[in-house]
Amino acid sequence: MRVVLFGTGNVATRLGSALREKNTEILQVFGRTEAAAADLARLLGCPFTTSQKEIISDADLYLLAVSDDAIPGLLSGIPVGDRLVVHTAGSVSMEVLAPFARNFGVFYPLQTLSKQKPVDFGNIPICLEANRPENLEKLDALARTISDKVVHIDSEQRAQLHLAAVFACNFVNRFYAIGDALLKEQQLDFDLLKPLIAETAAKALQFAPATVQTGPAVRNNRKVMEKHLKMLAQHPEWQKLYELISQDIFHTPK
Amino acid sequence: MRVVLFGTGNVATRLGSALREKNTEILQVFGRTEAAAADLARLLGCPFTTSQKEIISDADLYLLAVSDDAIPGLLSGIPVGDRLVVHTAGSVSMEVLAPFARNFGVFYPLQTLSKQKPVDFGNIPICLEANRPENLEKLDALARTISDKVVHIDSEQRAQLHLAAVFACNFVNRFYAIGDALLKEQQLDFDLLKPLIAETAAKALQFAPATVQTGPAVRNNRKVMEKHLKMLAQHPEWQKLYELISQDIFHTPK
Repeated sequence: MRVVLFGTGNVATRLGSALREKNTEILQVFGRTEAAAADLARLLGCPFTTSQKEIISDADLYLLAVSDDAIPGLLSGIPVGDRLVVHTAGSVSMEVLAPFARNFGVFYPLQTLSKQKPVDFGNIPICLEANRPENLEKLDALARTISDKVVHIDSEQRAQLHLAAVFACNFVNRFYAIGDALLKEQQLDFDLLKPLIAETAAKALQFAPATVQTGPAVRNNRKVMEKHLKMLAQHPEWQKLYELISQDIFHTPK
Repeated sequence: MRVVLFGTGNVATRLGSALREKNTEILQVFGRTEAAAADLARLLGCPFTTSQKEIISDADLYLLAVSDDAIPGLLSGIPVGDRLVVHTAGSVSMEVLAPFARNFGVFYPLQTLSKQKPVDFGNIPICLEANRPENLEKLDALARTISDKVVHIDSEQRAQLHLAAVFACNFVNRFYAIGDALLKEQQLDFDLLKPLIAETAAKALQFAPATVQTGPAVRNNRKVMEKHLKMLAQHPEWQKLYELISQDIFHTPK
């Protein structure tokens, strides 16, 4: 498959690299800013453009790894005709592509991707959706070149998956950051928390998380919780979070 | 060191096992209920008792791995004399032991421990505190038999470390559980989230978490956040959490 890649961010960088490594031909990178587009094009060994007019018109796949809001504006300027167009967003319905293309779908890798850190795509779920069975087949073949975990799910399921991922990844990372900040206040090193972070994640891979909940809230240890709330007096927003989550843990049937 | 171990829960089980494996002699297990005490005693190959009167009086160390509130009641019934007494709690000041003992301290393993899952203690931070340097030395020698990461910190630092751990472990696990619950609502398998959970933790071991924050909140993607809040209509408590954490992420300087 010959691909034009739209976007220069975390998803475009990592997904483009993974496809390139498995010999998918990246014909061109499109980016809004020249520096970013040039950087990614160099990494992928292909040309780039910042002009919609210069986009190669006979690619097999137009892969949109751009911010959700940029999708319609981008497509309105490109005559894709019968070519296959996909976006990579967790919470954007496939149908946003319908006004612009006859063949379209979604290619959503469920992973936290950063430019800084390469990842092995082999076990990353690639969530696919397409407007026609033959498009789904094409996307399936492409996805299987980079991952062993290809799933076909609809837009509603994908949105729910994305929501679950926000809790299990984005919000989790925020709590790592809060932990880091709290330690710094007492001149303690974040390294102290790392074995705990690793073990907490390892447990979730092995047991249903609700069944291995530990901590003051699940034991309803009010004395410790009151102490922690007082210690958070300088961080009213974290104090509120502490209270809400502790209640949520305590009120969940065990 | 010859140790009497108080408690039969997660900490007593895992810490007792780790010490036993490195040839610390566990003289006796004390537990409130016979079944639990007998189970742990069998695991550790030692006798047990449920009666404070039968506690062996010439041990080198009385190791209290019991619930925070049980500590004073337990000690008031045991004439420990000059023997060394330690508790294992994150948020309990060392000074609670002062009315009952002349030699006392804290032996706090910073890890999420469950009866179900053995852990390698080798990289678990053991946080020590003692009322006299010679007691700290004894605890240090014992801790080093099971861990390479022994640290000496005071009660205030330990409390802050425990608070940070509640965010980075207990609350994180709650979010894994919320993710699991959300997936079940759409007949999706929790396995889909596992590579994401593993990668999010792996990133935190490598980068300062605040610098690798991803997701709708850090991009201030209001459309996605509004959509997610609507999807959480049946879970007002999770909706509130979603709002608070998203604001917290967005307002944190990048």
